[in-house]
Amino acid sequence: MSGWVAIAGLGPGSDLMVTPEVTAALAEATDVVGYIPYVARVAGREGLTLHPTDNRVELDRAAHALSMAAEGRRVVVVSSGDPGVFAMASAVFEALEAGPVAWRDLDIRVLPGITAMLAAAARAGAPLGHDFCAINLSDNLKPWVLIEKRLRLAAEADFAMAFYNPRSRSRPEGFARALEVLREACGDARPVIFARAISTPEETLRVVPLTEAEPEMADMRTMVIVGSSQTRIIERAGAPIVYTPRGVAG
Amino acid sequence: MSGWVAIAGLGPGSDLMVTPEVTAALAEATDVVGYIPYVARVAGREGLTLHPTDNRVELDRAAHALSMAAEGRRVVVVSSGDPGVFAMASAVFEALEAGPVAWRDLDIRVLPGITAMLAAAARAGAPLGHDFCAINLSDNLKPWVLIEKRLRLAAEADFAMAFYNPRSRSRPEGFARALEVLREACGDARPVIFARAISTPEETLRVVPLTEAEPEMADMRTMVIVGSSQTRIIERAGAPIVYTPRGVAG
Repeated sequence: MSGWVAIAGLGPGSDLMVTPEVTAALAEATDVVGYIPYVARVAGREGLTLHPTDNRVELDRAAHALSMAAEGRRVVVVSSGDPGVFAMASAVFEALEAGPVAWRDLDIRVLPGITAMLAAAARAGAPLGHDFCAINLSDNLKPWVLIEKRLRLAAEADFAMAFYNPRSRSRPEGFARALEVLREACGDARPVIFARAISTPEETLRVVPLTEAEPEMADMRTMVIVGSSQTRIIERAGAPIVYTPRGVAG
Repeated sequence: MSGWVAIAGLGPGSDLMVTPEVTAALAEATDVVGYIPYVARVAGREGLTLHPTDNRVELDRAAHALSMAAEGRRVVVVSSGDPGVFAMASAVFEALEAGPVAWRDLDIRVLPGITAMLAAAARAGAPLGHDFCAINLSDNLKPWVLIEKRLRLAAEADFAMAFYNPRSRSRPEGFARALEVLREACGDARPVIFARAISTPEETLRVVPLTEAEPEMADMRTMVIVGSSQTRIIERAGAPIVYTPRGVAG
């Protein structure tokens, strides 16, 4: 039996956003590896071993997946959203690069998924319909000064911005500081979208002007999207539509 | 009968990357609207009218979709990839904002899909595994000077970069100029990924250093991804793996 690793994205939460490719990989797997709440989304069955692990052990988890595949097992590493966006794919390749050379011959595939910013954008309208950037606001793995530099340059480039991991209990001050930097750099009341737990029963969506955005509006399940200077709001009876037009006048 | 519009993403090409949510919307639709090659991906059936239209008529197509929904029809507007990323969602909202006020009461949903940059990134490894930006290199709808400014700022921010619409027959010189700007701004041999027609039978993937990237390596079916200064290559027997680590040293 020939082992493999598939690093698969489960999308933002709803099974209706899991691709058939990911569903097929899970059906063939002997082992599923991932963070506890993501592994909990995979139905157990005869012949399938679930390996849920805690947060912040990504490299151990990745090495475990690779070593099982080297033993001939068919391993799916699950991420929420897309595995290539602030998720497990980079961790697996870090472990691969640091591990035994023989691992490089393994059959490794990345199966894309609906990443949180695109699910959030879809619910709000089309705020990422023009040029944009995606920034992880967690300073676990990079210095805060780099985050701040990127925020200022992204504002100068007039990108719409999608923020992953805006705020955690262990470092609540980071997102407050990010909002300050954005208010200085943007200097206007452009829309900020707080999209929480999109496509799950706990889904909420809130749109406020940047001038009224508060750190408490986000938690670790919230995706934050800040429009560019061109982003528009269409008011209507229900939730407003937030979208960025395709063009910028010359 | 109550009409609606669903603006749906068909993913990069393979039916294995179409979400069940999009498949369900297509099964309920009375009308499918979109660019000819995307509508061609939808199977015809009794009770379904297909409305394929040419490129560059996005606003007419959007208004047509909204007017049919206002008449009670169930309309799916199809895009390749994700409808919210350089695709039909912004066009529909532009038409909505410019159209009759009554259209604002319509049931309009955006159904996300696997966008080209994430499908391309998955095939190459995880080049977008850290902070990144997405830029449409077409200057049909924005001035070239703005594209160039964004390239320089994105390089200064050390984002990985994903480029949509890098090159067309009508303006082949733009991408050559973009590569010059990047070589000036980045000043190193970081990896450039040319991912063409990912997930289709014509799929090709090529990785070259920025110093050796040529305009002719891209066409309108190619997604181009340029790594950040941190992006790494893992050499192995088959295609190399290109990934950007999750962290940056402080």
